[in-house]
Amino acid sequence: MDERVKEHARILVDWCTDVSEGDDVVVTASPEAHELVVALHDEIGERGGNPLTLYSSDEASRAYMKAHDGDFSLPEHSLAMYEEADAAIHVRSDPNVSAMSDVDGEKLAERSRVTKPIQEERLSKRWCLTQHPTNAHAQNAGMSLAEYRDFVYSATLRDWEAVEEYQEELRERLDEASEVRVVADETDVRMSVDGMNAVNSAGRNNMPSGEVFTAPVPDSVEGTVHFDKPLIHQGREMEGVRLTFEGGVVVESSAERNEEALDDLLETDEGARRLGELGIGTNREIDRFTKNMLFDEKMGETVHMALGRAYDENVGEGREGNDSAVHVDMILDTSDGRIEFDGEVVQENGEFVWE
Amino acid sequence: MDERVKEHARILVDWCTDVSEGDDVVVTASPEAHELVVALHDEIGERGGNPLTLYSSDEASRAYMKAHDGDFSLPEHSLAMYEEADAAIHVRSDPNVSAMSDVDGEKLAERSRVTKPIQEERLSKRWCLTQHPTNAHAQNAGMSLAEYRDFVYSATLRDWEAVEEYQEELRERLDEASEVRVVADETDVRMSVDGMNAVNSAGRNNMPSGEVFTAPVPDSVEGTVHFDKPLIHQGREMEGVRLTFEGGVVVESSAERNEEALDDLLETDEGARRLGELGIGTNREIDRFTKNMLFDEKMGETVHMALGRAYDENVGEGREGNDSAVHVDMILDTSDGRIEFDGEVVQENGEFVWE
Repeated sequence: MDERVKEHARILVDWCTDVSEGDDVVVTASPEAHELVVALHDEIGERGGNPLTLYSSDEASRAYMKAHDGDFSLPEHSLAMYEEADAAIHVRSDPNVSAMSDVDGEKLAERSRVTKPIQEERLSKRWCLTQHPTNAHAQNAGMSLAEYRDFVYSATLRDWEAVEEYQEELRERLDEASEVRVVADETDVRMSVDGMNAVNSAGRNNMPSGEVFTAPVPDSVEGTVHFDKPLIHQGREMEGVRLTFEGGVVVESSAERNEEALDDLLETDEGARRLGELGIGTNREIDRFTKNMLFDEKMGETVHMALGRAYDENVGEGREGNDSAVHVDMILDTSDGRIEFDGEVVQENGEFVWE
Repeated sequence: MDERVKEHARILVDWCTDVSEGDDVVVTASPEAHELVVALHDEIGERGGNPLTLYSSDEASRAYMKAHDGDFSLPEHSLAMYEEADAAIHVRSDPNVSAMSDVDGEKLAERSRVTKPIQEERLSKRWCLTQHPTNAHAQNAGMSLAEYRDFVYSATLRDWEAVEEYQEELRERLDEASEVRVVADETDVRMSVDGMNAVNSAGRNNMPSGEVFTAPVPDSVEGTVHFDKPLIHQGREMEGVRLTFEGGVVVESSAERNEEALDDLLETDEGARRLGELGIGTNREIDRFTKNMLFDEKMGETVHMALGRAYDENVGEGREGNDSAVHVDMILDTSDGRIEFDGEVVQENGEFVWE
């Protein structure tokens, strides 16, 4: 076994989810991540935890979705499992990132709505989302598997304590700011983050990570954003998404590619038309876009915004965050733009002013 | 996809577990059974059920067992999941039937003891154990994969309603009997089945099936049995097991091969030294031993007895069945022997007297 797989497993079990004796852990992985599944069992066993591993397969999910009449019920066994779990490790490892592409978007959205309590329960635990390098993701990124493995592990096997320290200046400033403005190509958007909590994301919930993020005040977003990087939601790839906000709500939307998927997303529920997250990427180890949000949104010199649900940890006391069954990140390049907190420039042409 | 995989999935979901709208189903399978996992998602989706699929891997279990210090705790998330489930489909599909062979037997037995409530919860639902043909099981049976597929599907894709009807005569007689005696090579054993319930097993819980079974009165077993067929418990193969019973308890034991595994098994708990099941195989479609209990015990002209836990369904009102964390079946050939119910011969040289 590649030593890096073992190191990856150790980071997931220690830094990300802090597994110790008696902890009940839900691992989710596809057969493509078999080596990591074995390594995780080793590490969880050593710490005296209890792994329960879910078989994740988009091919199976597609078969299920195609066969189902769309009148979904809540899987109580899945909810009960997460209620009793202490930690959840979700490993992305699809053998085909387009495996769900011919499933009806409205049906997927309905399923998301019905299973939302499970998602919420999972996110209330110590949870982590990570990537195992597979041929499908390598191909999607235009790389060989060996090259992609190097890419994934160089972004992942890092000193996360040092990353956390590096990001603290940005977190403090964002936490104290009332208004954020982002100006870039075809983009000028403002939003209030007053009373919201900025989070220093250094690999607890996302592995790899490298971002500082917060939640916008839901009705405060005003302006236009051009997300110039591709994104994938439920297996459907979109490109060139443009959104215009008034009073926090998307009032105009378009996509250069797969506008239908964008429309389905916006129709999920009321919250899918509002922002739930504003994030600023800091991870310069991620040196290229790979059409994988887990990496893309962490890249240095980018900003991302998510339609949908806000994370509880971002929502300040007495404040309300956006609520939705979905959370879909979209990215724009700020290497030729700027970010302002309360009128003061904090990043210009990709460089933080204190760097 | 092989049409037989789809037909197998339909039988599992209809005849075995009767999945209908809103049912929460736990599927357990290894990556080797991927096609069947996809087919099951299709069939469960069509019926409006909710599949939750567990990633089964002896390789991962071995890593976990090796790394763990042996002081196990009950996985509450797993128990909660089964409590809320309506049905459970367990697919045997190991890529290596010996994957657990170097794990300490006492440690495995301790883990079985600690996780017994999960096992009990699972067996209280509509559950089914089945086999997906893999190279490992084919090799273990001394067959090519193509030949083994034919073997598995000819034993599995049957008219189970007709099988149920065929077995009813035997079930009625065993149900009414007080004492059963089995005489064969180096074997002469008697046991009371008085007040116990004989079950006509035609593929609800085991797929394939083809047997009629009951539970012995735990302290009634007297005599000696030579199990002349190999058996595997937790990945460890034993051969030539001989047991002598007095007052229902094993007082002498030996094995021609892997006696240590037999000793570990007998030491699991008090109930592991008593019988929990007596079964009579009727399935003549299973035309050879394949070192796989799911098939072997169903073979016509054989009898099997299980050390350990009795099935609730066999235990008559006011009676007590044997209790244990394990249930391990052992087989003997009766093609040159005989079976008596209350002194009356019911099978001689493999033929039932009413055939």
